[in-house]
Amino acid sequence: MKALLLVAHGSRRKQSNSEVVTLSEKLSTKCSTDFPIIKAGFLELSSPSISEGVQQCISEGATTVVLLPYFLNSGRHVVEDIPNIVKSIQEKFTAVQIKIAPHLGASDLMLDLLISSAKKV
Amino acid sequence: MKALLLVAHGSRRKQSNSEVVTLSEKLSTKCSTDFPIIKAGFLELSSPSISEGVQQCISEGATTVVLLPYFLNSGRHVVEDIPNIVKSIQEKFTAVQIKIAPHLGASDLMLDLLISSAKKV
Repeated sequence: MKALLLVAHGSRRKQSNSEVVTLSEKLSTKCSTDFPIIKAGFLELSSPSISEGVQQCISEGATTVVLLPYFLNSGRHVVEDIPNIVKSIQEKFTAVQIKIAPHLGASDLMLDLLISSAKKV
Repeated sequence: MKALLLVAHGSRRKQSNSEVVTLSEKLSTKCSTDFPIIKAGFLELSSPSISEGVQQCISEGATTVVLLPYFLNSGRHVVEDIPNIVKSIQEKFTAVQIKIAPHLGASDLMLDLLISSAKKV
């Protein structure tokens, strides 16, 4: 069973963290066929942590966990921090496949999204 | 004449900043009819600053500058920092209209983008 973990940086501002959780809930309504389990996890400043998020997915029966970095740029968090965390979780849970999806800035759809937002004002 | 200023946080990692500039160049090829001038500006850690970016737009003839926050969440940068910077620039350039577009996380297209990225692995 496949799980999706939306991974955000985490903010001191509670509302930002709630937005991420709300987004993961919206995702559940749109792609539960592909991903029967969908959770959110935070790199820092909020909980659950990425590791806790992955473990929640596993405890609900996930055999594959896809981490989706909710990050725009290929900064240090995307290039180093998240892969390092995944490596250490993967060593603990060898029976579960943990993958990392491309960060959002790498998507072809980003240009359309930018243009749509720019035209809103 | 309308200008679009893609506003990113800025990173210590040069490649992240280059990605933003590249994205602003790609935008130029896709929406130059709506926005004949398209630039990038950074909140911190890179240049041009937001203020310098707006001034570049104005010096090229912009009468309206739309700031497009390349941010996912409504964190402090989106809610306070960028509006405060805009307020102070607006006071200097009263003949130019400076607007702020919604941040990316507010877009309906974000769910489609997330699902598309998640399915890539």
